[in-house]
Amino acid sequence: MIVHLNPQATAAQAEQIANQVRALYFHDGSRYVLVTGTKDNSLEGVDPALIDQHWLFDNDIQLASRSYIDHIREVRISDDLVIGGTTGHTMMITGPCSVESEEQIEVCAQLCVEQGVKMLRAGAYKPRTSPYSFQGMGLDGLKLLAKMRDKYGLKVITEVRDATHVEDVIEHTDVIQIGAKAMYDQGILRRCATAGKPVLLKRGFGSTLQEFVQAAEFLLSGGNSNVVLCERGIRTFETKTRFTLDLCGVAYLKQHTNLPVILDPSHAMGYAYGVADLARACTAMGVDGLLIESHPNPKVAKSDASQQLDHPQFRALMASLHPIAAAVGRTMI
Amino acid sequence: MIVHLNPQATAAQAEQIANQVRALYFHDGSRYVLVTGTKDNSLEGVDPALIDQHWLFDNDIQLASRSYIDHIREVRISDDLVIGGTTGHTMMITGPCSVESEEQIEVCAQLCVEQGVKMLRAGAYKPRTSPYSFQGMGLDGLKLLAKMRDKYGLKVITEVRDATHVEDVIEHTDVIQIGAKAMYDQGILRRCATAGKPVLLKRGFGSTLQEFVQAAEFLLSGGNSNVVLCERGIRTFETKTRFTLDLCGVAYLKQHTNLPVILDPSHAMGYAYGVADLARACTAMGVDGLLIESHPNPKVAKSDASQQLDHPQFRALMASLHPIAAAVGRTMI
Amino acid sequence: MIVHLNPQATAAQAEQIANQVRALYFHDGSRYVLVTGTKDNSLEGVDPALIDQHWLFDNDIQLASRSYIDHIREVRISDDLVIGGTTGHTMMITGPCSVESEEQIEVCAQLCVEQGVKMLRAGAYKPRTSPYSFQGMGLDGLKLLAKMRDKYGLKVITEVRDATHVEDVIEHTDVIQIGAKAMYDQGILRRCATAGKPVLLKRGFGSTLQEFVQAAEFLLSGGNSNVVLCERGIRTFETKTRFTLDLCGVAYLKQHTNLPVILDPSHAMGYAYGVADLARACTAMGVDGLLIESHPNPKVAKSDASQQLDHPQFRALMASLHPIAAAVGRTMI
Amino acid sequence: MIVHLNPQATAAQAEQIANQVRALYFHDGSRYVLVTGTKDNSLEGVDPALIDQHWLFDNDIQLASRSYIDHIREVRISDDLVIGGTTGHTMMITGPCSVESEEQIEVCAQLCVEQGVKMLRAGAYKPRTSPYSFQGMGLDGLKLLAKMRDKYGLKVITEVRDATHVEDVIEHTDVIQIGAKAMYDQGILRRCATAGKPVLLKRGFGSTLQEFVQAAEFLLSGGNSNVVLCERGIRTFETKTRFTLDLCGVAYLKQHTNLPVILDPSHAMGYAYGVADLARACTAMGVDGLLIESHPNPKVAKSDASQQLDHPQFRALMASLHPIAAAVGRTMI
Repeated sequence: MIVHLNPQATAAQAEQIANQVRALYFHDGSRYVLVTGTKDNSLEGVDPALIDQHWLFDNDIQLASRSYIDHIREVRISDDLVIGGTTGHTMMITGPCSVESEEQIEVCAQLCVEQGVKMLRAGAYKPRTSPYSFQGMGLDGLKLLAKMRDKYGLKVITEVRDATHVEDVIEHTDVIQIGAKAMYDQGILRRCATAGKPVLLKRGFGSTLQEFVQAAEFLLSGGNSNVVLCERGIRTFETKTRFTLDLCGVAYLKQHTNLPVILDPSHAMGYAYGVADLARACTAMGVDGLLIESHPNPKVAKSDASQQLDHPQFRALMASLHPIAAAVGRTMI
Repeated sequence: MIVHLNPQATAAQAEQIANQVRALYFHDGSRYVLVTGTKDNSLEGVDPALIDQHWLFDNDIQLASRSYIDHIREVRISDDLVIGGTTGHTMMITGPCSVESEEQIEVCAQLCVEQGVKMLRAGAYKPRTSPYSFQGMGLDGLKLLAKMRDKYGLKVITEVRDATHVEDVIEHTDVIQIGAKAMYDQGILRRCATAGKPVLLKRGFGSTLQEFVQAAEFLLSGGNSNVVLCERGIRTFETKTRFTLDLCGVAYLKQHTNLPVILDPSHAMGYAYGVADLARACTAMGVDGLLIESHPNPKVAKSDASQQLDHPQFRALMASLHPIAAAVGRTMI
Repeated sequence: MIVHLNPQATAAQAEQIANQVRALYFHDGSRYVLVTGTKDNSLEGVDPALIDQHWLFDNDIQLASRSYIDHIREVRISDDLVIGGTTGHTMMITGPCSVESEEQIEVCAQLCVEQGVKMLRAGAYKPRTSPYSFQGMGLDGLKLLAKMRDKYGLKVITEVRDATHVEDVIEHTDVIQIGAKAMYDQGILRRCATAGKPVLLKRGFGSTLQEFVQAAEFLLSGGNSNVVLCERGIRTFETKTRFTLDLCGVAYLKQHTNLPVILDPSHAMGYAYGVADLARACTAMGVDGLLIESHPNPKVAKSDASQQLDHPQFRALMASLHPIAAAVGRTMI
Repeated sequence: MIVHLNPQATAAQAEQIANQVRALYFHDGSRYVLVTGTKDNSLEGVDPALIDQHWLFDNDIQLASRSYIDHIREVRISDDLVIGGTTGHTMMITGPCSVESEEQIEVCAQLCVEQGVKMLRAGAYKPRTSPYSFQGMGLDGLKLLAKMRDKYGLKVITEVRDATHVEDVIEHTDVIQIGAKAMYDQGILRRCATAGKPVLLKRGFGSTLQEFVQAAEFLLSGGNSNVVLCERGIRTFETKTRFTLDLCGVAYLKQHTNLPVILDPSHAMGYAYGVADLARACTAMGVDGLLIESHPNPKVAKSDASQQLDHPQFRALMASLHPIAAAVGRTMI
């Protein structure tokens, strides 16, 4: 159950009611909002004068639900970079899998500027499954990303792999990416809920849509309304491709949730050859953004070498996306 | 191994060599073609004068492979209905899940004519998983489809569910659809290989891409080169949607095989609300066709009621697909 | 809905009522039994004097349900070979993947005799996914199996791959195996329903438990009550093993259905090294039988070479199974 | 590559060589051990006198591999509680899903004492997928577990959900459980590698066996050799049961790794009715332990109510396991 308190209700009153009805609560800018589990759907004993409106749900997709907000939320990354809502924006995000050196990331930043891409991505803390693989440049990588932001006027996004560096990521990025392998991490989710920055939440590759949106509820119920969902492929029996991009799931999310959706075809496919086709498919679905791995020289990349586009391939992709976006009434930014 | 015999080689010589090297063989219009398993990659003892060319493979995707034919094959349904090759055609196929009555199927045929759709689909033998569900009109349904073909100048396609009616389907349809549940059926595959009609082969929802293309090899090695692959969703852990449309797999098929690919988003999604978005995604990928279930009144449909578009929805979908096809350099027919 | 007619009801009356309430019907030895789909749960207009008892269901697992028969059915293969019911029998079935020659299958038959195994298995029609692989000896293989039965007093079981040879299999075997790839084939299911022989129905590797039991309903509602379910591994994301043996599913089947369950760890594992451990696990679950592939010389086997036990391994396995069966109150036969 | 340095090699020498060949390293009690990624399989430039022995691998399963240690490692929880090695022990671990109160956990501890079970389990930090569900008693729950240990002489195990409480768990438990959702968390893995306590690592339900064992490599290469693997079910398309217990995978782990394996049928099944059958199956496979959820009154449990055995069911289960363990030459402790 979601409960909108009267705008005049105080913090003390909100806390008291939340304890009484076993709810989480936060201030959404204009009022306190309470959310209970489905078992605790009762307002018995609460002063009706303090309550403006309430919504009942039969499962724990609540704040993200279309039954609560019947449109896609607007997510503001900065005053001039907004997605969702009525913007019709499909935002391109690109860059290499990992920051490898200043020279490398600067060439990537320059590609963004050249192509009108406003957000640069790259990993500093890589969630590798083997302890014997390259694990990322860490804080040095973060600082290089921040340097590119300052030098080229780009926004940057990078992934939180685990809790050891969550504060560093929050400090240095414009959008915090919670990776697929950290999607269930309540410590990270709760910290990012109060970080004051937009969050891009990736779906775990073994996670149901229900669980995925419930993870977003940790962020929303902690008071962060700038949440973007990212589908990046699920694990299936098919092994010719790295994962299986779940566009049926994206259709579900667009229909049933109020959160913008960004697609990551690079990780889903795992091979550069299919990325452009999939990116075109995603664009035609009218999604809110794309995350495409590109690298000045994929052959020497320290991670995910097989799936990154080289820069000529990326330019060709961008050229092909604009008319598709236009055909579905959207603008590629 | 694929072996092209000299065009002068006779049937008797082809048979003799095939026995000698343990190969399947067929005449492709200009010559005999032999195909062996990977264990039997030897031409020892065969008169070299009879051999024009040969190709070696490390797995049993051979005739469908890009290493054999390095472009998408042209599939001719009729003289004026061709897909694949250099046509740039994306062919729409629509109609109800099942033929239910003459009135119903005629309204569907009229929708095709109105929308410039050249091929009508509908099931006569339904592969239901329960014996207690509607199993289709059978031969009467087939005859109604044939009647629509004659009256409206449409091509028709319907599914072979099992071997009991394969001859009837071959007789009455323009394109034989081998359903997902029959994909492994060698009896049906071998019969359709010599049926003299194009075949649309659906991927089993539990079948790997390797197995899917190998099923096509049964058709190709039996002498039928008019084979179209159809992706219709695979079974994964996600249950909010009926299946998961595998567009990563489609990217793989486009890259590695020489067969046209048609997409069936209706069965993948299982809900009408997502079909249009998915159809737009498929079109932007540059596929060779779409199979969309539509029904004059889905609410009363005897099968798959939830996933069929009504006719106004179908018209809106078609209007949205033409500009996307144009944006990727193709024509929706 | 299942309806038991009064034992005095005639065939004509049964047919008339079945038409009226849209039911399938069969004679179970003592009376006519009708089964309708869940949408047709009405006996309106039927003479109550003709009806003994009826059961309502909310899904199409009906004749196989514990709500209908609250114990495991007894399945009689012959007068002296019975499983299920109160027998406490766990029946071993073994033999090679394929009949390859008379010498080979005779050694296998002798192993059965030596080990007290009463049923010999081997494939004559192999459901290979590639047209370029060994497809089995066909009718010659069937006849060799029948010869072993006559010579050694064994029962034999072999698989129907597709409809082209269903009559031959019915004629020559004691138990008809419907393979995983044919599980949805209504033509085969309906034919085997009236074949007068027990059927072992394998679960499709992409099939849900619901669909699996519904396939059994085709057999049961056609009048064949001698149906055994066989779990043989489902396809998952894990590829270190060939399939994933679904013992949670077996627990479900034991709880919710009235059919005996036989396990096939050989196909699930795909590697001989794990088969014995899995066979021991299945035995401890109290299943009704095991299907274990064994071969006199697996290295030269024409199909499934990696997963067949050699004969010393099989003997060691049998020795280890008897005490486990005893520990759970069963007898290995 | 694993490298055993000469026992005389000093810490400084180990560090210097590790930097040179890009290796992780640790002291295993008798010597320094270095491990490199497969790309860095070179000892060029290293003084051969410092090297005792080395092993090459083609993938990143190294310290856990049977090629390195060709038997199951012994894991010592305390001097009188040892599994693996030549002990033949199958260790039962039981207790409720969550600590709910002192009264509740004390009844559970008494059940352990009564049944000869040496290790008590219960969750204090629950990894719920919804923010609106019961999240566990936290530190208070940990302290209650520790109290039971002191009062009843039991060992206790509880799960680390995320990094916010990893120190508390390390302090209060005898065995640290890394939950399925934290399996990829390098921060937690690295911290537990140096915690000086045994670790039970649960397989992520979307994780391959390769990834699972690689996660164990984080622990092993950090110097913790007391690592136990726990299979608890993977996510598949089947939804009648909560997950699918992967016993084929267990057969793989027993064959290819040197780590003890414990099974958790409760989470795999999700329903109490199947747990006993599955526990018997696991025991017959000869695994090193079982994790069974039991609760004095499952109906009122605050989490996982459906899958917990009540205490009479647990007693019956234990009684049935001893003879099965004996039948496979093991002892249930």
